Amino acid sequence: MHISVHKIDMASPSDVSGLAALIDAGTVDPANIIALIGKTEGNGGANDFTRGFATLSYQLLLAKHLAISPEEVGKRVAFVWSGGTEGVLSPHATILTRTPAQGKPDGSKRLAMGIALSGTIAPEEIGTKRHASAVADAVQKALLEAGIDRPEDVHYVQVKGPLLTPASIADADRRGVTTATRDPNGSKAFARGAMALGVALGLGEVTQEAFDATRIAGDLGVYSAVASTSAGGELVSCEILLFGNSSRATSPFRIGHAVLIDAIDASGVRRALASAGLTLSAEPTGEETSRIAAIFAKAEASPTGKIRGHRNTMLSDADINYERHARAALGAVIASLTSDPAIFVSGGTEHQCAPGQAPIAAIIRL
Amino acid sequence: MHISVHKIDMASPSDVSGLAALIDAGTVDPANIIALIGKTEGNGGANDFTRGFATLSYQLLLAKHLAISPEEVGKRVAFVWSGGTEGVLSPHATILTRTPAQGKPDGSKRLAMGIALSGTIAPEEIGTKRHASAVADAVQKALLEAGIDRPEDVHYVQVKGPLLTPASIADADRRGVTTATRDPNGSKAFARGAMALGVALGLGEVTQEAFDATRIAGDLGVYSAVASTSAGGELVSCEILLFGNSSRATSPFRIGHAVLIDAIDASGVRRALASAGLTLSAEPTGEETSRIAAIFAKAEASPTGKIRGHRNTMLSDADINYERHARAALGAVIASLTSDPAIFVSGGTEHQCAPGQAPIAAIIRL
Amino acid sequence: MHISVHKIDMASPSDVSGLAALIDAGTVDPANIIALIGKTEGNGGANDFTRGFATLSYQLLLAKHLAISPEEVGKRVAFVWSGGTEGVLSPHATILTRTPAQGKPDGSKRLAMGIALSGTIAPEEIGTKRHASAVADAVQKALLEAGIDRPEDVHYVQVKGPLLTPASIADADRRGVTTATRDPNGSKAFARGAMALGVALGLGEVTQEAFDATRIAGDLGVYSAVASTSAGGELVSCEILLFGNSSRATSPFRIGHAVLIDAIDASGVRRALASAGLTLSAEPTGEETSRIAAIFAKAEASPTGKIRGHRNTMLSDADINYERHARAALGAVIASLTSDPAIFVSGGTEHQCAPGQAPIAAIIRL
Amino acid sequence: MHISVHKIDMASPSDVSGLAALIDAGTVDPANIIALIGKTEGNGGANDFTRGFATLSYQLLLAKHLAISPEEVGKRVAFVWSGGTEGVLSPHATILTRTPAQGKPDGSKRLAMGIALSGTIAPEEIGTKRHASAVADAVQKALLEAGIDRPEDVHYVQVKGPLLTPASIADADRRGVTTATRDPNGSKAFARGAMALGVALGLGEVTQEAFDATRIAGDLGVYSAVASTSAGGELVSCEILLFGNSSRATSPFRIGHAVLIDAIDASGVRRALASAGLTLSAEPTGEETSRIAAIFAKAEASPTGKIRGHRNTMLSDADINYERHARAALGAVIASLTSDPAIFVSGGTEHQCAPGQAPIAAIIRL
Repeated sequence: MHISVHKIDMASPSDVSGLAALIDAGTVDPANIIALIGKTEGNGGANDFTRGFATLSYQLLLAKHLAISPEEVGKRVAFVWSGGTEGVLSPHATILTRTPAQGKPDGSKRLAMGIALSGTIAPEEIGTKRHASAVADAVQKALLEAGIDRPEDVHYVQVKGPLLTPASIADADRRGVTTATRDPNGSKAFARGAMALGVALGLGEVTQEAFDATRIAGDLGVYSAVASTSAGGELVSCEILLFGNSSRATSPFRIGHAVLIDAIDASGVRRALASAGLTLSAEPTGEETSRIAAIFAKAEASPTGKIRGHRNTMLSDADINYERHARAALGAVIASLTSDPAIFVSGGTEHQCAPGQAPIAAIIRL
Repeated sequence: MHISVHKIDMASPSDVSGLAALIDAGTVDPANIIALIGKTEGNGGANDFTRGFATLSYQLLLAKHLAISPEEVGKRVAFVWSGGTEGVLSPHATILTRTPAQGKPDGSKRLAMGIALSGTIAPEEIGTKRHASAVADAVQKALLEAGIDRPEDVHYVQVKGPLLTPASIADADRRGVTTATRDPNGSKAFARGAMALGVALGLGEVTQEAFDATRIAGDLGVYSAVASTSAGGELVSCEILLFGNSSRATSPFRIGHAVLIDAIDASGVRRALASAGLTLSAEPTGEETSRIAAIFAKAEASPTGKIRGHRNTMLSDADINYERHARAALGAVIASLTSDPAIFVSGGTEHQCAPGQAPIAAIIRL
Repeated sequence: MHISVHKIDMASPSDVSGLAALIDAGTVDPANIIALIGKTEGNGGANDFTRGFATLSYQLLLAKHLAISPEEVGKRVAFVWSGGTEGVLSPHATILTRTPAQGKPDGSKRLAMGIALSGTIAPEEIGTKRHASAVADAVQKALLEAGIDRPEDVHYVQVKGPLLTPASIADADRRGVTTATRDPNGSKAFARGAMALGVALGLGEVTQEAFDATRIAGDLGVYSAVASTSAGGELVSCEILLFGNSSRATSPFRIGHAVLIDAIDASGVRRALASAGLTLSAEPTGEETSRIAAIFAKAEASPTGKIRGHRNTMLSDADINYERHARAALGAVIASLTSDPAIFVSGGTEHQCAPGQAPIAAIIRL
Repeated sequence: MHISVHKIDMASPSDVSGLAALIDAGTVDPANIIALIGKTEGNGGANDFTRGFATLSYQLLLAKHLAISPEEVGKRVAFVWSGGTEGVLSPHATILTRTPAQGKPDGSKRLAMGIALSGTIAPEEIGTKRHASAVADAVQKALLEAGIDRPEDVHYVQVKGPLLTPASIADADRRGVTTATRDPNGSKAFARGAMALGVALGLGEVTQEAFDATRIAGDLGVYSAVASTSAGGELVSCEILLFGNSSRATSPFRIGHAVLIDAIDASGVRRALASAGLTLSAEPTGEETSRIAAIFAKAEASPTGKIRGHRNTMLSDADINYERHARAALGAVIASLTSDPAIFVSGGTEHQCAPGQAPIAAIIRL
C-alpha cells in the first residue's frame, strides 16, 4: 500500500480549484482518491450547510473526471467535513489517495489506511451498544484492509455515523421500538459516544467486559485515545477511516498521536508530532514545519469550567457556542507551533479521551 | 517609587471578592491603588455593559473602604476594562498600587508607572491632531511622574479617551464646527489612532515633522510600538497609564515588550517575556511561568485576509465579530506558553504597530 | 388599594434618569414603589449581566432617596428584568406603586396587586413538587394581600425563584440528598415549570389530584394560563407578583389576559387588550393605543418546528438562541398593534399555557 | 403574456423536492421557468453560502429536466436568494413561469414580468452613475418586454448586480483607474444605491437632472419606491426582474405595492395588499389570506435609533447584525396578517424609499 497526502486551501466551500489543479497537473489521479477530510467556514452547528455544499461541489468535480454520477462518487470517496474556522483556522481539504506499494517496502513503518462501512444502523440501535459493536466490527475490517497487525500502530480512527432525527424517531415509534433518547440534538452525544466506544473495543483499548459494563455517554472514564467521531442526520451506516503505520506500506509519510490535556496544551501538540517522528525546536524552524503534512485534532471545553485553575466562560456564553470557542483556542495553539492554520480541528469528545481531554494526530513527511 | 501588581480572578463582572480579600488580609492598602486593568466576560462591543458594571462594583467596594463617594474613587483610580473573554481568556483584574520607594534603589531598572490626564477634548478635536497632541503632552507628564528618563525604557502606554457620539456630533453641529467623521462607530478608529499617534509623538517614536505629515487612521505605516489605546463614549478627556522601568524604583517587578507579527506569533510572546528578563524554555516550567505577573496585548485580524499564507475568515464572519476571533486566537497562544489564561488581550490597533501587527507587554517578578 | 403604573424608557441598563425625573417631579413617591418590571438590552442568557447592573443602579437611586442601604431596597422592591431587546423591543422599566385606596371604591373592578415571598427552597427541592407547593402557598397569600376574592380575577402572576447551580448541587451532595437534575442549565426548565405549576395549584387551575399526578417539565399538558416564571442562580426563595382586578381597588387601571397560540398571534394580542376593556380597531388609533399602560408576554418557539404549517428554523440556528428569535417575532407583532415597542416579552414557557402557546397580559388605563 | 406563481417550502437550502414534485405532476413545465426568488436559512452575510448551495441545487434539477448544463440553466433562469430566516421567516422559493397569453386578454390589468441584463459593469463603474445608467437602460428594456406601457403600473423591480471585491479593486489598480471605494464591504451600499437610483431613473421616478445631481449613497432623499436591489461579489452584470400589471396579460394574478414607514408598519402591509386588490379584515380570514401568492419586502433599521419614539438597539448589538433584527421584526408583522411566514424579506435600502422606510410588494390571486 502507498498513501499520498495532499492539502489544498479553499477560497469558499464550493472552491474545488485546488484539487482540479492537482488533477490537471497529473499530481493526483482522481481514480485513486479514497478520502477527503477538511474544514469549511460554517458555524459547525445543525444549520451549517457548508459541509453539504462542499461535498456536492467535490462530487461534481470528480464525477466529471471519472465519468460517473455524483452519487457514485459518494460511494467510493469518503468525505469528512468539520464546519467552523474560528480564530485563525483556515478552510482547506486534505486529499488522501491509495495505490499499491511502490517498490519493495523497506521494513520501516509507514502510513497505511483502511476504510470500512458498517451495515445499516436502525434508529433503535443508534447510540446503543449495538451501534458500538457494529463500529467495532468495521474497525476490525479496516485494520485488516490497512495491513496493520498491531492495534498500537493505529493512531487515528475517524468515524462518521447516524444520529437520531425526528423522522427516525417517528419510524421507531411506528414499529413500537424504543430509541436511546427522544431528543434529536441530544442524540449526538449518544451516537458519537457509541462510535468512540466501538473504536475502543475494536482496537482492544477496552475489554469486552469493560465495554459491556459501560454506560454510553455516561461512564466517560472509559474511552478510546485515537477515535474521532462525528454524527450526522443524513447517514444510515457508519464509515470508518482508520490511519496507522504498517511495515508493508511504502508511503512517504508516518502518523503519530497524543492526548491533549486541555485547549492550550502546546506540549501535547509537540508530543503528537514527536510520536510521528518530528521533534520541534523551542521555536520551530521552517524546515521542521514543512515536514507536517496534516494534523487532526478535537477541541473540547473544560468540564470543570476551569483551565489551569482559572475560570473559563465558554459554557456560559449564550452568543457563541462553546465548540466555536474551543476550536478557536486549540487551532491557534497548534498553528503557533506549525505556522500553518490549515488544521482539522473539530468538536465533541464523548468517550474520545478522558473528559476535558482530546485526541490529536499528526502525519509527517519522511 | 514602588509599584505592586496583584492579579485576581473574577467570578462575574460584579465580583469584587478577590480585591476585598486582599484588602481584608492587609495585602493591599486601598489608599495605594492607582489603577485596575482587567477583562470582563462581555462581547467587547458597543452594547457590552460588563465594563461599566465592573467599574461601578469596584467603585462601591473602594468607596466603602476609603469612606468617599464612588465618583471620588473614579477620580483617583484609573479603570481599564476590555470586554470579551473568548476562547480560554479568563475574567480577571490586575490591581496596581503605588507607594514611595522602599529603601534605597539598587540601581537596577524596575517597574515604574506614571498616570496623567489630558484636558477636555472637544468633539471637533476628537480623532484629530489636536487630540493626538493633547495625548503627547500628557505622555510627557506621565514620563516625568514615572521617573523614567529615557523613552526607550517605556514598554506600555495604555490610553483611554473619548470617541464621537450622536450627542457630541449634535453639539458640534450646534456650534457650527466640523467633526472628523459623522459616524459614531467609525470614530473609534480615528480616536484610537489619534491617541496612539500622540503616544508615538510623546515618546519620540515619530518626529514632529512625520507626525504633522501623517493622516490619522490613514497612514498606518506611522505608529507607536508601545501604545495600546481604547475609546469610549462616556469619556471627555484622555487618561494615560504609562509603564516602564526606572532605576529610581524599588518595585519587585520589571516590564518588557515586543511586537507580535500576527495572531499566532508565539515567538513574539517569548520575546516580550525575554525583554523583561524571563527566557522561557521550549516547554516552559512552572518556575518560569510563576514569574509572570501580567501580560497586556492587542489582537488584530490580518489586513491581507491571510495568516502565514493561508486564508483567514475572521473579517467575513457575519456571526462573530473579527475582534472576538482575534482575541480567542492570540489569548490561547499566549496562555499555551504561560499556563495562565487570565491575560489582558484587547482589540483595535490603528497606529499601534504596523498594520496586522500588535503590541505585547509583560511584567515579570524579580 | 390604589396601584399606579409608570413606564420609562432607558438609555442603557444603568440609566435611572427616567425614574429620577418622576421622583424629582413628585409624580412618584419612592416610598410607594413595590415593583419594577423591565427589559434590558442583554442577550437574555446565562452571561447576561445587564439585569444585575440595572438592579444595582436602581437600588443605588432608591437607597439615596429613601436613606437606606441598597440591600434594604432589594428587600422592599421586587425587581424583574428580562434581558434581550431583539427586533424592535425597547429597553424600559414599568414602575408599580401601591398606596391605600383613594376615596371610596366605585364597585368596578380595578387593578390590584399582591406580593409574597416563599420560604427558602433547598437545593433538593428546586424543580420538585415541594418547590411548586411553596409557590402555591405564596400565591394564596398574594391573593389575600391583593384583595382579590375570585381566582378568575387574576390575570398575571410573575414568579422569580431559584435554579440549581454548581454550588447548590455540591451542597446537596455534601448532605447526601438528590437534586432534580445535575445539569445547572437544565434545571431552568424544572424550576420554571415547578413554579408555574405552583401558580396553577394556588389559583385552582389544577386540582390537587391533577397536580400530584403531573411530572414537572414532563406532562406539559397541565399548566397555568396566567403564570410567567423565571429562574435565576442568585435566588434562594420565590417572589410572587400577582396582578388582578378587585372591586376594592381605586386604581385608574384594569388588567386582562389571553393566550397566544403562536409567535404571530395578533388576534391573541387583541383578545388580551379586549379582556382588559380595550377593543382595537383594524388599524388602531392613537387614542386607543394611548390607553395601553403595559403589556407582559412570553414568547416561545414552536415545539413542532412549524408555524401555521411552514417550517421554522429557530431551533436549529446555532448562531442565535431560539429565545431571541421568538422575542423578536412576538415583540414586533405586539408593537405593530400598540405602536409601542417598549413591551415586556420574555422566554421559556414550561407549564405556562399549552406547549407552543404563551400567556399575554395587558394593563389598560380607565 | 401569462405569468404563473408557485411557492414551495424548502426543508434545507438544497431541498428541491417541492419543485421536482410540481414538475413531476405536470403543474410546472421546467422550460417555462424564468425566475426563482427565495429565502434560505443562512445568516444573510458575506459568509452565507446557503444562497450558492440553493442555486447549484436547483440548477442541477433543472439541468436534468431540460437536458442542458447547470451553467446554461443559470443563463435562462434568474435566481434571487436572500439569506436569513430570522424570527418566524420560513425557507421557501417562489417559482415564476412565463408563457404566451392564454386566450384573449380581458382588458383588466394582470401580472406581467420583464427580465433584462445590463452589459458588464467594470470595477471602476460599480456604485457610480454609469452603473446606475446601465440599470436604467435595462429597466427600459424590461418594461418593453413586460408589455407595460405606464411606469406607474410597475410595482416591484428586483435588481442583482456586482459589488467591488479585492480582486476587482486590484484589477482597477492595475489599469490605473479609480473605484468608488476601496472597501469591498463598503461597496455594497454604493452598488445597491446605484442600482436603485437606476431603477428610479428608468421608471421616471427621478428626472435626469435630479439623477445627475444626486450623490450615490449620499443624497438618500432621492429614491425609487419600487426598487429592491442586492449586490454580490460573483456578478459582473446586472439582472433586472421587473414586475407590474399589463392589460395584455392573462395571468390569474395582480401585483401591488406600498411603502413601509418602519419595521412595525402593519398598515403598510395592508396598503400593499389593497394596492393589488385585496382588502384585509381587522382579523384576516382564511379566504382572504389564501389569495396572497407572494410578498416581497425590504426591512431596515431606523436611522434615528428610535421606532415610534422609543429607543431601538439593533444598530448597537455586536452579537446580531441589525439586518437580522430588522428581518425578524418585519417578517413577523407581515406573517401576523397573512398567516404565512414564507415571505421574502431582505435587507439594505439605499435609495429604496426614504431613509428608514422600505418597499413592499404583494402578488394576489384573482
